[in-house]
Amino acid sequence: MNAKRGFASDNNSGVHSDIIKAIQEVNSGHTIGYGSDKYTEKALQKFKQIFGKYTETYFVFTGTAANVLGLSAVTKSYHSIICAETAHINEDECGAPEKFTGCKVLTAETPDGKLTPDLIKKHLYGFDFEHHSQPKIISITQATEMGTVYKPDEIKQITDFAHKNKMLVHMDGARISNAAVSLNLPFKAFTTDVGLDILSFGGTKNGMMYGEAVVFFNSNLAPDFKYIRKQGMQLASKMRFIGAQFLAFFENDLWKKNAKHSNEMAQYLVSKVKNIPAVKITQPVEANGVFAIVPKQIISELQKEFFFYMWDENKSEVRWMTSFDTTKEDVDQFAEKLKALL
Amino acid sequence: MNAKRGFASDNNSGVHSDIIKAIQEVNSGHTIGYGSDKYTEKALQKFKQIFGKYTETYFVFTGTAANVLGLSAVTKSYHSIICAETAHINEDECGAPEKFTGCKVLTAETPDGKLTPDLIKKHLYGFDFEHHSQPKIISITQATEMGTVYKPDEIKQITDFAHKNKMLVHMDGARISNAAVSLNLPFKAFTTDVGLDILSFGGTKNGMMYGEAVVFFNSNLAPDFKYIRKQGMQLASKMRFIGAQFLAFFENDLWKKNAKHSNEMAQYLVSKVKNIPAVKITQPVEANGVFAIVPKQIISELQKEFFFYMWDENKSEVRWMTSFDTTKEDVDQFAEKLKALL
Amino acid sequence: MNAKRGFASDNNSGVHSDIIKAIQEVNSGHTIGYGSDKYTEKALQKFKQIFGKYTETYFVFTGTAANVLGLSAVTKSYHSIICAETAHINEDECGAPEKFTGCKVLTAETPDGKLTPDLIKKHLYGFDFEHHSQPKIISITQATEMGTVYKPDEIKQITDFAHKNKMLVHMDGARISNAAVSLNLPFKAFTTDVGLDILSFGGTKNGMMYGEAVVFFNSNLAPDFKYIRKQGMQLASKMRFIGAQFLAFFENDLWKKNAKHSNEMAQYLVSKVKNIPAVKITQPVEANGVFAIVPKQIISELQKEFFFYMWDENKSEVRWMTSFDTTKEDVDQFAEKLKALL
Amino acid sequence: MNAKRGFASDNNSGVHSDIIKAIQEVNSGHTIGYGSDKYTEKALQKFKQIFGKYTETYFVFTGTAANVLGLSAVTKSYHSIICAETAHINEDECGAPEKFTGCKVLTAETPDGKLTPDLIKKHLYGFDFEHHSQPKIISITQATEMGTVYKPDEIKQITDFAHKNKMLVHMDGARISNAAVSLNLPFKAFTTDVGLDILSFGGTKNGMMYGEAVVFFNSNLAPDFKYIRKQGMQLASKMRFIGAQFLAFFENDLWKKNAKHSNEMAQYLVSKVKNIPAVKITQPVEANGVFAIVPKQIISELQKEFFFYMWDENKSEVRWMTSFDTTKEDVDQFAEKLKALL
Repeated sequence: MNAKRGFASDNNSGVHSDIIKAIQEVNSGHTIGYGSDKYTEKALQKFKQIFGKYTETYFVFTGTAANVLGLSAVTKSYHSIICAETAHINEDECGAPEKFTGCKVLTAETPDGKLTPDLIKKHLYGFDFEHHSQPKIISITQATEMGTVYKPDEIKQITDFAHKNKMLVHMDGARISNAAVSLNLPFKAFTTDVGLDILSFGGTKNGMMYGEAVVFFNSNLAPDFKYIRKQGMQLASKMRFIGAQFLAFFENDLWKKNAKHSNEMAQYLVSKVKNIPAVKITQPVEANGVFAIVPKQIISELQKEFFFYMWDENKSEVRWMTSFDTTKEDVDQFAEKLKALL
Repeated sequence: MNAKRGFASDNNSGVHSDIIKAIQEVNSGHTIGYGSDKYTEKALQKFKQIFGKYTETYFVFTGTAANVLGLSAVTKSYHSIICAETAHINEDECGAPEKFTGCKVLTAETPDGKLTPDLIKKHLYGFDFEHHSQPKIISITQATEMGTVYKPDEIKQITDFAHKNKMLVHMDGARISNAAVSLNLPFKAFTTDVGLDILSFGGTKNGMMYGEAVVFFNSNLAPDFKYIRKQGMQLASKMRFIGAQFLAFFENDLWKKNAKHSNEMAQYLVSKVKNIPAVKITQPVEANGVFAIVPKQIISELQKEFFFYMWDENKSEVRWMTSFDTTKEDVDQFAEKLKALL
Repeated sequence: MNAKRGFASDNNSGVHSDIIKAIQEVNSGHTIGYGSDKYTEKALQKFKQIFGKYTETYFVFTGTAANVLGLSAVTKSYHSIICAETAHINEDECGAPEKFTGCKVLTAETPDGKLTPDLIKKHLYGFDFEHHSQPKIISITQATEMGTVYKPDEIKQITDFAHKNKMLVHMDGARISNAAVSLNLPFKAFTTDVGLDILSFGGTKNGMMYGEAVVFFNSNLAPDFKYIRKQGMQLASKMRFIGAQFLAFFENDLWKKNAKHSNEMAQYLVSKVKNIPAVKITQPVEANGVFAIVPKQIISELQKEFFFYMWDENKSEVRWMTSFDTTKEDVDQFAEKLKALL
Repeated sequence: MNAKRGFASDNNSGVHSDIIKAIQEVNSGHTIGYGSDKYTEKALQKFKQIFGKYTETYFVFTGTAANVLGLSAVTKSYHSIICAETAHINEDECGAPEKFTGCKVLTAETPDGKLTPDLIKKHLYGFDFEHHSQPKIISITQATEMGTVYKPDEIKQITDFAHKNKMLVHMDGARISNAAVSLNLPFKAFTTDVGLDILSFGGTKNGMMYGEAVVFFNSNLAPDFKYIRKQGMQLASKMRFIGAQFLAFFENDLWKKNAKHSNEMAQYLVSKVKNIPAVKITQPVEANGVFAIVPKQIISELQKEFFFYMWDENKSEVRWMTSFDTTKEDVDQFAEKLKALL
């Protein structure tokens, strides 16, 4: 029998009840489609309050779309995009960035998922040389795919480095709420305030049903994004239901409560397994992901009850993600089972 | 003050309460993401029951995505796609078909929105000639953008004609429920049974929140569609909520009740306005759209209370769409206002 | 036995001997590749002299490439391109414009191959409406595919109309030399001086071996064209041989002599066949193409000796193209044969 | 004063006189355009003789086009292409592979430019997993960009490995003649006979003016390549001049004489500089490229007289390419100057 909640991914969870409630509350009468309704407009205002008045925000359906369309808005096909080898845009989007932007995606190896100017600079050459894809934008992930979190000054080093080279910086913020909670900082402190250019702001992995946002920190960056979104097949007709979800997401700091809980459950999980000799935590646990090496022979048995993914078959490294709805009991049962198997 | 419900589009409506209920009911515990959950699997089985066991169905977010990815699955960039000039893929998708498939889109003028072999054949030349985009697929819309409905044998004439020319036929079924009710036939009778190859099956315009389906009538047509959908940024992580919506859509024939009501409201609207001398109905009203010429001077006044769109400025022709939630009172008030303005 | 020269196309001809000589003359020692050689630089200077100092010119291999890359330079994928239904970019490039630019190509029917603001304007709507491909550029052909030639003021009407609508105008000048001779005007008079934005300047159809030029009339239009050309697979490594050809093309007005001869041969052909009752010339013969209706039963017999193409099977209309190397004897023999068959 | 011939690239050379002569000889009368002429047909037959009767060959203009269109023929946009980090398709095509195929390009570091199954296998995972670009084709370069040459069995190891994984192998043969001479083997021995699937066969770098060939080793691989070439803007109208060049290229083994000379000049250059203590040859010299570390301070002085490129600024490593027209005197003068500067 499977557990009610596993540790596969924060998108294996359901939807927070406040989000569902918000959806119900706006479900009355007609509103103009495609984003000209009052809920969407109010939600977009909220994004301006959070990130600053010079920002422009657009809602899309998925995180992949937020990344790809955001990158698409500021690139031409002869540009290159630089990211960590583990980045979602490199590993998990089936080549959507290449297909949709035409750009070359260049990667840097980084064990903890974080880029630095030093890791990036090997790709910065061939400027003005027509035979070579022109480096245009650096994409970082916050929190990273490895469960680590960039500090504001680490991001600033990257944006300074990028801007000095006439490049831009994009952040894949599928788990930006977990990062904000981890840093104990408002979103603005590690985005607007450190020179970020584009953000994919994630909702789905933190308790929403669907809906992500593309935030441009300078409205000149994408004067034509509405066409890019529509042509990108990401313009919702009944947009009010995305607007309503985001309103609920920010109302009473639901985003923070969800992310805080999720991060705490990751710490709780660590506390439960770190002293097991056969288990080795492999990354700093700064958000809601726990990476660990566990004995290969118990993995499939453990997976029978609790969903989770193998991360690196060769190293017998697994990934455990906690979620807004993970409970202490889930963790306790999981740790018990793990111990029992060893 | 605006009316609670207007006649702008069937996607200006909200979501049917049974759909909302279904969403709530599946919102418990974790399920595998990206479509491997039991609700999605059950919904896909339902599609097999409806359209036949050789069909394969995939869920996406939007109607534009269903059209574009479906066409993408069976075309190469040197192909051409033939459709009515008024087709959604030609007029309303901001060039997404060209961008995503690379194909040429060829159009035929047709006042009632319906294609015939005669209208299509002018584009069937240059086969095997490398200078010319190769005609590959015909796309029809059911119900059409003009509110008319193809009869099964009209579709069969097109599929026979296409297959004889080694071409395929796609149906944009954003309003397929309205067509089925209008024809008083099961979906199968005018899709599977008349040789259709690909269908975009619409949910959103008939009471769902989001979610459309791409149906391939022969599983060989798109063995690799899962990659096309993911790369097309249309793979939902919390897919169970699309699965659940479709289950509710088919449960107790909700789809039929909604579409039947919507079509009836269009007829009711016709009955209320057809005798007004200044109003001229311009298309057969076979689904849930009413096209009419009305005196130009009253249009903007009428729009202040009831949303609806100008269709053809030059002819002073407008479009009134009814929806699953349109009420007789909505129509009565609208007709009253219209008469008052004349 | 086939004739030495037929009337199929001006690209069925060989290469003018002065062009071959120029190729030989530059074939000595090493030069920097990819266009930084002195011959290419001198040829580019020549283009500046001809079209004006604010122009920027780039060499590519083919006419299709000149059209597609030129259009690509100034469009985004959500734009539309408007042209005559008979335009090369619409009929004869196997969808390369759609594939490479992602744009929608919209057409207007025009019997003589010439566009007018009146023919174009039906496509100018939906500006600023994100559901609709945004009209961006009008492409005209000079001389047209129908052998007709735009007068300067006809072009000016189109450029004025375009610019008023914030659009651009491109000219497919695969046969621009024939047009210049026909108008008895310098190139500048019907390009730079009438507000053209982009030109595909043709060499191959007027006596060159290969090589066409993309001319931007304002260097701001395509600051990044060098990347577009390279990524478009059109950057010649041994560019000096294109440069040398263009130098010879302009030297002693070779281009003019070739085009003048070609046009005269078309007139001579007309003079030989116009009085044959069974032959009906269908288009004004203003450049080097002659369109005629001839009895269907003699066509294939005539084609056995002289290559030429059927233009419209239904009307039994054929196209006869003359070339820089067509001789009076070729025409005489052709007319004799034609008469003999009737 | 610059030297008549430098060491920048084999495409900085001119054209072999036999090639020019062949061009002149076919320049008479009309032939059908676009490849249906007898010279092109004869040249294509020659390719069948060389590579085997099951092969199909198509001519294009540039090496980048041969690579990109060849890869395009067998990939879909959700595939990935694996190559050496130094590969031309990765470094020198301005992202044309990504733009045109939509595929992800994955690279392996390899100091000598040669791939092995061991280097490739790190990218072979995620098969059948829709989130991940599907590995589809391995591209190797022969001779490599580092002047090294694969032995037939090294290629066979790669093709066996690829085919076992249901993948294909492409060879960028821009310098395939130099490799054949280096191996002292017919082309077939290290292509057809070792299981290659697609070849870009180079002419331009070995004495031709322009023209490359795409060879499919199984005609089923690209039944539709004629459309891909045309849409790829690479269909020459006056194709006979490419056909004629290739006929001359194979006539009397001109290709072999040219490549043999070029390779010998590289060896001669090595013999002249290898004993200079300040110069360090960094790669085995197996074809016509010599890589060497030389003192940084003399490089720009040396470049003033002899073109050549810096390869790796950090290591002060340069690349010297010899060509079919390089003379012993060129090398002697170069070595003298080099010594004089040290």
